[in-house]
Amino acid sequence: MRKLVAEFIGTLWLVLGGCGSAVLAAGFPEMGIGFLGVSLAFGLTVVTMAYGIGHISGCHLNPAVSIGLWVGGRFEGKEVLPYVIAQVLGAIAGAGILYVIASGKPGFELGGFASNGFGEASPGGYSMTAALATELVMTFIFLFVILGSTYPKAPAGLAGLAIGFCLVLIHLVSIPVTNTSVNPARSTSQALFAGGIYLQQLWLFWVAPIIGAVLAGIVYKNLSPNE
Amino acid sequence: MRKLVAEFIGTLWLVLGGCGSAVLAAGFPEMGIGFLGVSLAFGLTVVTMAYGIGHISGCHLNPAVSIGLWVGGRFEGKEVLPYVIAQVLGAIAGAGILYVIASGKPGFELGGFASNGFGEASPGGYSMTAALATELVMTFIFLFVILGSTYPKAPAGLAGLAIGFCLVLIHLVSIPVTNTSVNPARSTSQALFAGGIYLQQLWLFWVAPIIGAVLAGIVYKNLSPNE
Amino acid sequence: MRKLVAEFIGTLWLVLGGCGSAVLAAGFPEMGIGFLGVSLAFGLTVVTMAYGIGHISGCHLNPAVSIGLWVGGRFEGKEVLPYVIAQVLGAIAGAGILYVIASGKPGFELGGFASNGFGEASPGGYSMTAALATELVMTFIFLFVILGSTYPKAPAGLAGLAIGFCLVLIHLVSIPVTNTSVNPARSTSQALFAGGIYLQQLWLFWVAPIIGAVLAGIVYKNLSPNE
Amino acid sequence: MRKLVAEFIGTLWLVLGGCGSAVLAAGFPEMGIGFLGVSLAFGLTVVTMAYGIGHISGCHLNPAVSIGLWVGGRFEGKEVLPYVIAQVLGAIAGAGILYVIASGKPGFELGGFASNGFGEASPGGYSMTAALATELVMTFIFLFVILGSTYPKAPAGLAGLAIGFCLVLIHLVSIPVTNTSVNPARSTSQALFAGGIYLQQLWLFWVAPIIGAVLAGIVYKNLSPNE
Repeated sequence: MRKLVAEFIGTLWLVLGGCGSAVLAAGFPEMGIGFLGVSLAFGLTVVTMAYGIGHISGCHLNPAVSIGLWVGGRFEGKEVLPYVIAQVLGAIAGAGILYVIASGKPGFELGGFASNGFGEASPGGYSMTAALATELVMTFIFLFVILGSTYPKAPAGLAGLAIGFCLVLIHLVSIPVTNTSVNPARSTSQALFAGGIYLQQLWLFWVAPIIGAVLAGIVYKNLSPNE
Repeated sequence: MRKLVAEFIGTLWLVLGGCGSAVLAAGFPEMGIGFLGVSLAFGLTVVTMAYGIGHISGCHLNPAVSIGLWVGGRFEGKEVLPYVIAQVLGAIAGAGILYVIASGKPGFELGGFASNGFGEASPGGYSMTAALATELVMTFIFLFVILGSTYPKAPAGLAGLAIGFCLVLIHLVSIPVTNTSVNPARSTSQALFAGGIYLQQLWLFWVAPIIGAVLAGIVYKNLSPNE
Repeated sequence: MRKLVAEFIGTLWLVLGGCGSAVLAAGFPEMGIGFLGVSLAFGLTVVTMAYGIGHISGCHLNPAVSIGLWVGGRFEGKEVLPYVIAQVLGAIAGAGILYVIASGKPGFELGGFASNGFGEASPGGYSMTAALATELVMTFIFLFVILGSTYPKAPAGLAGLAIGFCLVLIHLVSIPVTNTSVNPARSTSQALFAGGIYLQQLWLFWVAPIIGAVLAGIVYKNLSPNE
Repeated sequence: MRKLVAEFIGTLWLVLGGCGSAVLAAGFPEMGIGFLGVSLAFGLTVVTMAYGIGHISGCHLNPAVSIGLWVGGRFEGKEVLPYVIAQVLGAIAGAGILYVIASGKPGFELGGFASNGFGEASPGGYSMTAALATELVMTFIFLFVILGSTYPKAPAGLAGLAIGFCLVLIHLVSIPVTNTSVNPARSTSQALFAGGIYLQQLWLFWVAPIIGAVLAGIVYKNLSPNE
């Protein structure tokens, strides 16, 4: 239960910090943080929580991560579903807090919130194929780095930085394509508020990240056998 | 006494470095560092001092941190008040140095200095409710990460990075709302110079961060008992 | 063989992450990440893979690195050629994935992709002499930092950060000159797609980085003898 | 002698990387890295060399650092002068390489290079008093963090990050005031090329940093006695 509370708070923070920076600060006139600041924000949610709750729950904050770690032989199958539920609920709570804050600005309009999407819902108008490829490959690499940096031979204690910086990098590349998910809980939390096309496209942000994560689990297990 | 001198110098640096970047460099024509640079500056004041004075005073630099650590069972109650006084005095000294430097520019106007505020005093015009929610939740997470990353099971030596990066992240999200406080000493130092509405609103930047810090102390202690 | 697969995936990521950020996100209207974001992206590909595959292959991701380490007495000569081949193939695969994603945007034009160049192919129009000096000196320093930070007396575990941050820095300085290579595999992968002048100038981005790497190997070995 | 070669190369890199980013990339149209990127570049020169040559020479790269460490009881007096000479020569060599690269752009004009200055030579037109206060206080804090993070009780191996990030932060605050020195060798190298007013004002960028460094050495030694 302590683990699930930790995952709930951690994923709340991922959404409040990451999506919050996008909704509140990215486009602020003249001083806005842009995609670079949003990328940094998403990654730092993971860095901060890795050191904050890593020793409690492992700090997954993401259904694709829990599934990929399970396939890679680092996480017990029976824990996957409770983790995923805690993550999705935490993400929704984070979106709720963000809504309360964001709507405190005169003239606030929800728009797409910080939802993920493709085609007309993509920041740069990228196709569904591009979105699928992006989310699958980015999540593959994300899990690959997670599995590698938490491997017993990797330098102890630095995995939190490496994993968080990997999420920074993934956002630096892919915000224009899909607004970057690699995390079904994060996508769900935003689509529930934004509705419409974002809810219709939500399936892709469960399917592609999970496929990428499963492939990474398989590849890494063969590349670097557990000891 | 050595601890109090360290807290004084550290909080001086937090204000001079963080508020200084906002006043001197954020809006410089074309080359300005924007909210992203200010966020980084605030966080790096904590990173640098964590390694500079962490072994002397613990590097709190913030009354909400001292109070949250006390509630969380990591800091002695009798030390709270001296720490808070040293922090507030250090913050005011930092603001004084900043004033000397900033006023060396022809045509300098103080304006709001780098004060925190809501309503018309908020950078983005956010309401008092949004400001309260923001400061409370952000300080809650800040203390949560502090308590977690300094927990005996967390990787030794990296807490300074995790905590400083958490402050970067908090600023990336919340500068548009309140100009980001999560630190009553920092808010006080600026309001004393800016006066007027900033002084009238100063109460919120003591109340909300302290409530957030107290809640984090309670939650974390239950989530991860001290050993 | 495990090492070569790791180098293949790692260099794929260097190109997809680094060149991908340049092609997809650098010039996005208003929110684009600019040269600063691209610099960060390139460096973080190395940081993430250093912790992901460092314990498998050493994480070279770059023919100049493999050659420089060999000259510096840290890598076996018989492994150089297989590493270089795996790196070039991985880089091309990364460029291929990037092409699939980038071409999913309506109105996509390949242009120079993220190729390196000088003269009219330099972002800032810099001469061939400036390009030669830049690539040679930057790769010299890159290898110098690699050899130093992986030296037995250097702090264990932090080399991945130091080396990745060195690549960030190299890009912060030299993108305007050559679009920054210091990595023949990265240059080759882009030139193959962009063709024309970029293919004609590709020789420089093999010759200069390798000379710089060889010099660094010689200098560092004399400066700090292997133990 | 190995130490002096290391200091020479390290300071060369500080000037080529830091001043290079300012001259070549800061103001690039639309994609330029601005003061934020320049700040990061200066700091990363120290991070990279701290891990590259820290175990050889201690990685001072700065006459004020060598003097402050001597006053603080961490460096032998007889080594100060040779270090300072190696640093100044390395800085001039770095400026020379930068000149070769920068002048490879059609229409290049030297202007102030990346010189430090006050009054009309200050980026923001700040007065001599503001410049003196800035350079003195910033160097004081820089040395304070250096002395603290290399103290035996501080986390081993992370001083390089803390010190480099401190230089990032110092630049985030003070580029508008003096173009940021805190390093007489860096200032000298640019003033020699730029001449005129920059050479006339060079005295300030020796005097203020050294006073700040000496004060920090005295204060820190009293605050945290050597063991």
